[in-house]
Amino acid sequence: MNIADALFGRPLATEEEKAERIGPLKGIPIFGLDALSSAAYGPEAALTLLIPLGMAGAIYVWPITIGIVVLLGIVYFSYRQTISAYPHGGGSYTVATENLGERAGLLAAAALMIDYVLTAAVGISAGVGALVSAVPSLQSQTLHLCLGILILITLINLRGVQETGGVFLLPTYVFIACLLGLIAVGIFKTLVAGGHPVPVVVPPKITGITGSVSAWLLLRTFSSGCTAMTGVEAVSNGVMAFREPSDKCAKLTLTIIIAILMVMLLGIAYLVPAYGIAATDPGMPGYDSVLSQLLAAVMGRGAFYWLSIGSILVVLSLSANTAFADFPRLARAIAENGYLPHAFVIRGRRLVFAQGVYALALLTGLLLIIFGGITDRLIPLYAVGAFLAFTLSQAGMVMHWRRTGGPGAGRSMFVNALGAAATGITTLVVLVAKFVDGAWITVLLIPALILMMRSVRHHYAQVALEIRTSAPVHTDGLAEPVVLLPIDRWSLVSEKALRYAWTLSREIHVLHVGCGEDTDQLCRQWSEVVEKPAKMAGLPLPQLVVLASPYRFIVKPIVNYAIQQQIAQPDRNITVLIPELVESHWYHYLLHNNRPEAIRALLLFNGNQRITVVSVPYHLVS
Amino acid sequence: MNIADALFGRPLATEEEKAERIGPLKGIPIFGLDALSSAAYGPEAALTLLIPLGMAGAIYVWPITIGIVVLLGIVYFSYRQTISAYPHGGGSYTVATENLGERAGLLAAAALMIDYVLTAAVGISAGVGALVSAVPSLQSQTLHLCLGILILITLINLRGVQETGGVFLLPTYVFIACLLGLIAVGIFKTLVAGGHPVPVVVPPKITGITGSVSAWLLLRTFSSGCTAMTGVEAVSNGVMAFREPSDKCAKLTLTIIIAILMVMLLGIAYLVPAYGIAATDPGMPGYDSVLSQLLAAVMGRGAFYWLSIGSILVVLSLSANTAFADFPRLARAIAENGYLPHAFVIRGRRLVFAQGVYALALLTGLLLIIFGGITDRLIPLYAVGAFLAFTLSQAGMVMHWRRTGGPGAGRSMFVNALGAAATGITTLVVLVAKFVDGAWITVLLIPALILMMRSVRHHYAQVALEIRTSAPVHTDGLAEPVVLLPIDRWSLVSEKALRYAWTLSREIHVLHVGCGEDTDQLCRQWSEVVEKPAKMAGLPLPQLVVLASPYRFIVKPIVNYAIQQQIAQPDRNITVLIPELVESHWYHYLLHNNRPEAIRALLLFNGNQRITVVSVPYHLVS
Repeated sequence: MNIADALFGRPLATEEEKAERIGPLKGIPIFGLDALSSAAYGPEAALTLLIPLGMAGAIYVWPITIGIVVLLGIVYFSYRQTISAYPHGGGSYTVATENLGERAGLLAAAALMIDYVLTAAVGISAGVGALVSAVPSLQSQTLHLCLGILILITLINLRGVQETGGVFLLPTYVFIACLLGLIAVGIFKTLVAGGHPVPVVVPPKITGITGSVSAWLLLRTFSSGCTAMTGVEAVSNGVMAFREPSDKCAKLTLTIIIAILMVMLLGIAYLVPAYGIAATDPGMPGYDSVLSQLLAAVMGRGAFYWLSIGSILVVLSLSANTAFADFPRLARAIAENGYLPHAFVIRGRRLVFAQGVYALALLTGLLLIIFGGITDRLIPLYAVGAFLAFTLSQAGMVMHWRRTGGPGAGRSMFVNALGAAATGITTLVVLVAKFVDGAWITVLLIPALILMMRSVRHHYAQVALEIRTSAPVHTDGLAEPVVLLPIDRWSLVSEKALRYAWTLSREIHVLHVGCGEDTDQLCRQWSEVVEKPAKMAGLPLPQLVVLASPYRFIVKPIVNYAIQQQIAQPDRNITVLIPELVESHWYHYLLHNNRPEAIRALLLFNGNQRITVVSVPYHLVS
Repeated sequence: MNIADALFGRPLATEEEKAERIGPLKGIPIFGLDALSSAAYGPEAALTLLIPLGMAGAIYVWPITIGIVVLLGIVYFSYRQTISAYPHGGGSYTVATENLGERAGLLAAAALMIDYVLTAAVGISAGVGALVSAVPSLQSQTLHLCLGILILITLINLRGVQETGGVFLLPTYVFIACLLGLIAVGIFKTLVAGGHPVPVVVPPKITGITGSVSAWLLLRTFSSGCTAMTGVEAVSNGVMAFREPSDKCAKLTLTIIIAILMVMLLGIAYLVPAYGIAATDPGMPGYDSVLSQLLAAVMGRGAFYWLSIGSILVVLSLSANTAFADFPRLARAIAENGYLPHAFVIRGRRLVFAQGVYALALLTGLLLIIFGGITDRLIPLYAVGAFLAFTLSQAGMVMHWRRTGGPGAGRSMFVNALGAAATGITTLVVLVAKFVDGAWITVLLIPALILMMRSVRHHYAQVALEIRTSAPVHTDGLAEPVVLLPIDRWSLVSEKALRYAWTLSREIHVLHVGCGEDTDQLCRQWSEVVEKPAKMAGLPLPQLVVLASPYRFIVKPIVNYAIQQQIAQPDRNITVLIPELVESHWYHYLLHNNRPEAIRALLLFNGNQRITVVSVPYHLVS
């Protein structure tokens, strides 16, 4: 248990749960990293689509950003209301289930689960991608770096919420300070220069116009920019992780996150055209990210530049953590309704829903391995799930206000309806714009997941129905079991098992698989070592059965005999005693065969209700 | 079992063993591939060391080859004698153990085991290396190709000796025919041309002399050429695999293998200087292997060339098979003396010593993965083990003849003594020549392996001593067990387990880990569903024990309670019943937790002689 303590920390008692709760200071790194880090890739994703327009593209940056910020504002207000209405944690799944019914809830659940796995994989690979483009010699280690960071994040999350917040505190706030500092200085310089500041490092020249503007292009630009909004729902899912009053605390955290994100998005959108910056093609030599150009233009390539770039790398790869904070809570909520395995409901030693963390780590690792740590292709699959969940959550809140009524319900309903309409339209835009690139995979995966969750629930219901009873125990027909005892030779191990057998039943069959010499010796010894003493003590005589085995199988004849007995004695339990040597060191098990395990497994699966298997340990001293 | 049948073939009965035995036709592919394929790399390895001498190196080829062939002859005669003396299979291990004692036997065993693993790894990677140099686009798949071939060879070997011989028949004989054809045509052309034949394709020109001849260089060349001799001992180890009269059959096989190998070595040594061929540096552009140059020079680059090159590739990668034929037999011989786990003695469904095949496959796979499928660095580790084993085997035979005497013993002793001296000196030469390059690893590994084998034997002896008895069973102090039954709620599963408990003992403790609602319900139901019916039927009342668990652990409180009972009731067995749901589909197990397994394992390891664990299955119908 010492290794476990070192890796995961000492176990926490259920009563310690309150002390594990967090305030906004830690809440921002834990639930905000995904949303905040998107300031580093959202504008970039939008601007990349404007490359064909050359410098002329700059005029569309401002209106598109305004659109995204307005949408963000609507979503923010409606999630505030969700937190008030569901102070025990109201993610899209809970809200949709309670207000729109099971189908809508499962739809939200499937969409969100897919989105969280993608968030984790894309976050890690984006961080490693940025690192690798800075240090190209690491290129060949991309996958190993991704998996290393994944393992690190997994371990940190298994240590509990407090620890996770502590670890992520510094990089998050350095990132926020750098970006806000950049924007403040940039705006100051721009205003002083009358709107035309002189860049410290001149951004790369934009050459030529290769395309023309169209509604379709602007729509795709908008939907790419919308990736900046993923992660906004995290706080509302995790209200219970905040200290009392947890709804107030969660709302404050959400407000701070959204406010900072809005300032970042607007600031970048203001400065990019002012400094004459455009996106460069990531596949081409001379690629320089928009934030890197902006930092160099405003501040020069000094210490501040490198500190900012460093914090962006760290925050990008840690943005995966939002998925780790939220996925286990989501899985637990789904599992509580019986749609996922019960294990997701169990809090681990550090009060974390550990199985959810494992599951997410496993799925993310798989995704990283399949795509070799380069998850560019996954990005199109990405935002659909998040926006679908947004829409269902808003729609659910509309129904909620309609049902509950009360003062202010009308206004709240209006905000949520506006949110539902806006995010609903955005879902469609994103889906259409990205369908061919990969969003169709999400469209296929969602119903598959829903089907799976339904069948899990169905199975649990079946099992519960099958074993349920409130009837009193039946007391008739209790007969002592027929005891079968396989032995290889006469030894202290067999003696111990035989003595135990006598305490269980008067009918004992000692089974021995014939194998030449040992068999002859056992048959010769039998009357001396077993029959005579048994007769003298007045104990029932065990029957020695030698089983033939032409194929040298040991396990099969024993299993077959047990099954024959089960058929021959329909009103008795068949109890098979399996003597097992218990060694003091694990590596000694390599020296013994695994037949006891094989016999046990085969009897349990091939038997019916009446075969039970007993492990009779013999503890070796040496 | 159907998948197993398809992969490995139907099980074979012990009586079918005779039919699985082979003659020389299949014996040559099975036991000879390693020896024969070395004609493809032994001369190459020797000639590579002569590169610095330029064309002048050619004059040393013939004397060095003669030396190797003479050594081969000596080893051949002494192994013939070994086969006569040990018709049940006499590898170096058996011969050394029986004649020189345990220490020498273990030395031979360790040396051989290392050598077989290296044979398998080097064979596969050499074959893949040749393939990759022919098709460079496969370069990045080197490791995958190696592992694929490893899995294929493993599966083929698990299907049994007959099948293995059948699969390897064609490529082996194509290879033999091609090489003997090449030599015959080459010698004919050379004789017709009066010793100076005109090459069809002129071999690359040798440019410049960069070194001078020295005794040390010739010694290293000789020791490199000696790698051609590895694999010669395989037949003597596998005499029992041949059909009756098995010793005659084995000797015939050995004779054919050695005769073909000698002809190949001598033929190549004769033709290489005649055609003005020298080795090219394998690391440099324009590399062309000696056999490829020779084939082109004698036959031109036509169909015959490509057929030969193809068969060389196949035979090289299949040469690993010799290790698969012999390692399991060696491991079995060692395990029979108790120095390796007993599992190596068991014949599997196809009469193969399957555990040995698994172990070899695992070790070889590990080696391939560690070295990324490029095992150039392993070659220096290689021949030491084989020659050490040769030497011990010969020396053992000297003692054998000395002990047994009889007609012709003097002559036999002389042959073996000559063999021992020759191979002993070669061992030293190989060791010194390759020590720095990697032979030191073998020097460290051998004692480590010996230590391991000794400790395995010691452990078995300890265990046997500890459990041995021929005393009659003790019949005193038989008391019925205390039965502990953990349940989570009242259900048909708990009912079944309780009914079973009543058939075992009158003292039953029903354990329940407190967890809120379920606990309250169980306590409320208890008198109704258990106590009343028990009283009415006159059955002993089970005691309901609710265990507190502040850390939400379920397993730990149950295990602790069992251990407390074990201490509190020193003269009774503690029998823990664990109800287990048995599902009809394996994937349904993902929906249940693994607590039954955890409880079982913890009780068996942490308990002492008096805790037994019963699995009470409840078979679900759905």
